[in-house]
Amino acid sequence: MTEQDVIEYVQKKLDIFEQNAELECREIGDGNLNYVFRVVDQNSGQSVIIKQAGPVARISDAFKVSPDRNRIESEALKLQGELAPGFVPKVYSYDPIMNCCVMDDLSDHEIMRTALLKHKKFPLFADHITTFLVNTLLLTSDAVIDHKEKKALVQKFTNPELCEITEDLVYTEPFYDCEQNDVFPETREFIREEIWNDSKLALETAKLKFDFMTKAQSLLHGDLHTGSIFIKEDSTKIIDPEFAFYGPAGFDIGNVIANLIFAYVNASFTIEDQETKEDYLQYIQQTISDVIELFTKKFLHAWDENIKERTASAPSFKEWYLNSILEDASAAAGLELCRRIIGIAHVKDITSIENKESRALAEKICLTAGKTFILERANIRTGDDFVNVLLQSVRKFIEGEKFYDSSKSHSICTTG
Amino acid sequence: MTEQDVIEYVQKKLDIFEQNAELECREIGDGNLNYVFRVVDQNSGQSVIIKQAGPVARISDAFKVSPDRNRIESEALKLQGELAPGFVPKVYSYDPIMNCCVMDDLSDHEIMRTALLKHKKFPLFADHITTFLVNTLLLTSDAVIDHKEKKALVQKFTNPELCEITEDLVYTEPFYDCEQNDVFPETREFIREEIWNDSKLALETAKLKFDFMTKAQSLLHGDLHTGSIFIKEDSTKIIDPEFAFYGPAGFDIGNVIANLIFAYVNASFTIEDQETKEDYLQYIQQTISDVIELFTKKFLHAWDENIKERTASAPSFKEWYLNSILEDASAAAGLELCRRIIGIAHVKDITSIENKESRALAEKICLTAGKTFILERANIRTGDDFVNVLLQSVRKFIEGEKFYDSSKSHSICTTG
Repeated sequence: MTEQDVIEYVQKKLDIFEQNAELECREIGDGNLNYVFRVVDQNSGQSVIIKQAGPVARISDAFKVSPDRNRIESEALKLQGELAPGFVPKVYSYDPIMNCCVMDDLSDHEIMRTALLKHKKFPLFADHITTFLVNTLLLTSDAVIDHKEKKALVQKFTNPELCEITEDLVYTEPFYDCEQNDVFPETREFIREEIWNDSKLALETAKLKFDFMTKAQSLLHGDLHTGSIFIKEDSTKIIDPEFAFYGPAGFDIGNVIANLIFAYVNASFTIEDQETKEDYLQYIQQTISDVIELFTKKFLHAWDENIKERTASAPSFKEWYLNSILEDASAAAGLELCRRIIGIAHVKDITSIENKESRALAEKICLTAGKTFILERANIRTGDDFVNVLLQSVRKFIEGEKFYDSSKSHSICTTG
Repeated sequence: MTEQDVIEYVQKKLDIFEQNAELECREIGDGNLNYVFRVVDQNSGQSVIIKQAGPVARISDAFKVSPDRNRIESEALKLQGELAPGFVPKVYSYDPIMNCCVMDDLSDHEIMRTALLKHKKFPLFADHITTFLVNTLLLTSDAVIDHKEKKALVQKFTNPELCEITEDLVYTEPFYDCEQNDVFPETREFIREEIWNDSKLALETAKLKFDFMTKAQSLLHGDLHTGSIFIKEDSTKIIDPEFAFYGPAGFDIGNVIANLIFAYVNASFTIEDQETKEDYLQYIQQTISDVIELFTKKFLHAWDENIKERTASAPSFKEWYLNSILEDASAAAGLELCRRIIGIAHVKDITSIENKESRALAEKICLTAGKTFILERANIRTGDDFVNVLLQSVRKFIEGEKFYDSSKSHSICTTG
């Protein structure tokens, strides 16, 4: 659709705006796959977002992706909105003919990655994201919902094309010298040595890829990086679940952690004032730790409240189940850290570090942490464990860097 | 359909018999769910089987089961027939309106459970069943087929109602004092002590149930006991895959092993002549060992021939993958051994042991082996390992019983 088409579509098909609305439309998306339009009524100021998926990618006609992803996205948003009210945009309509859906305009929010790069703080984020994670992950699992209903959801959210993108870009290409990788020249030797030549890492990432393809545990967002989060001081909205499918619950958690680590590493190299830097690093560390600790706390609480599967009440099962999620979260954090450095899709947190030497150092820190998260995943369980992997990786490359002192950190684990 | 309806159906809808055929039909099924008819042309002797699934179970109108199981069965038979030619009956047609499918008449074969209870030997069985297992399990997995194609198969073989039966009858009810269980009074105290009061067993069976519900690894037969196998000296046909779905590959293997163990235990208590008994027990032991060893050998060979997934060629991945299948096989053998003793669906191998004391002993042997297969599954890998669990369980209850001497057993692992 063109901008004019969108205005006509909204006037004809939707019951959202007043009769006398004076609609204006602008394409605001800059993603790879979809077209995103914002429609505003100049009279009332009211606005909506229209997202359309074509049969080919926005960036190239040669790249075909099924527009079915638009169905997946709107159905995932609807379900996530029921399970975690207030944490996703409201969907007004989904049109399977035009492959588009109409949803809340979140222009008063900001993309979280951009905000973190400006070194903004969001003290409620850990609380918000963990409510979203626990509610969408646990409440879609066999531990809670009827098993036949769950199997119907697995069918509905079967997402072969977008899963294939993840299988290739996250689980495969970064771990060998693949032509499609986009490696920063200053880091190439390190990658060859530490990643591509490590046969243990090849084995473990293969196991994880098969887990990703076979473990239908929870309805995942599937692409939960800080670019998929709209945020402002008192509100967190998780958008773009077009990669949604049934997979290992830890995947979403690990992606959040890894992208907080990218923000941490960016801040380490870009904030000049030492005091400001330390303060911001401490904030990100605390957020990483809180995401894990609050997830754990809320998960255990929600488990006791919601569990319906009889066998799941066996002694120690709850702890075993949670631990396996945290193990998968560690692995997913490691995969995301590696693939954003080595693979085709980079993050601005790292690419915006202008000094070549600093960028190479930043990349080595991410890769070292990533590898540790993958290989040591069975022993990484607590907020401190996750933070310590980051700090030990930093310490390997930056001398004298301050470390996380968990005794000093105030617990915000009383919320939610 | 009545027998007369079936004759009319065959004459009108099928192109199998000659024009002058003189058809006779008889309902031959005695299963719980479906109607099975045999239609014979009195002139030519040619015959087919027609299997119809109603919206309610054959044994009770009150028990509703979706006739979609007939679609699952015929599609599974078609796919298994392509992957493992000669090991399943040929399907001539499937009719989604009448919920019936027409297939090869295997009346020259015998149900394997019945044959084993007559102490017949089938020296080719281990070779046949392992070809079937390797071909249907490995060649439907992400290791071999395109991942998008596999996801389409997972959708097609989503089987909520029949999976629920297994989830309840195999993974849940046997492991607590459930009203629906059907416990032999002489074994009840042992079951309470050894099974229901064992919290470690409750934990491990809960883990296994979640694996069963979430691990979409391979297209399973889903109910591969010796009552689902038609056999004669030179031919093995696996029938009734209405429970087919994507699950942990080891499930089918474990069910085969457990049902061989039932035959072993039956023979231990029913063959009177000592020499005949020892000879038959030795045959069953050897078959159990051969199933595992031949599966392993053929699996590794088929892996090298067929593997398409890049990451699966990581060093040691093949061995890790095989070991995890064997671990799941051990668990599934244990579950089947327990549920056939405790749960609602017994096996004739055990119920036909008339002497009460002998039957109680037989049940305790099965339960002891079953529990060991579940709890020790991580260490059970070879044919000898599987046989030793059986023999150690026998030794606990029968003094002086001869043991498997693997040094004496001749390897038949050179076939296939």
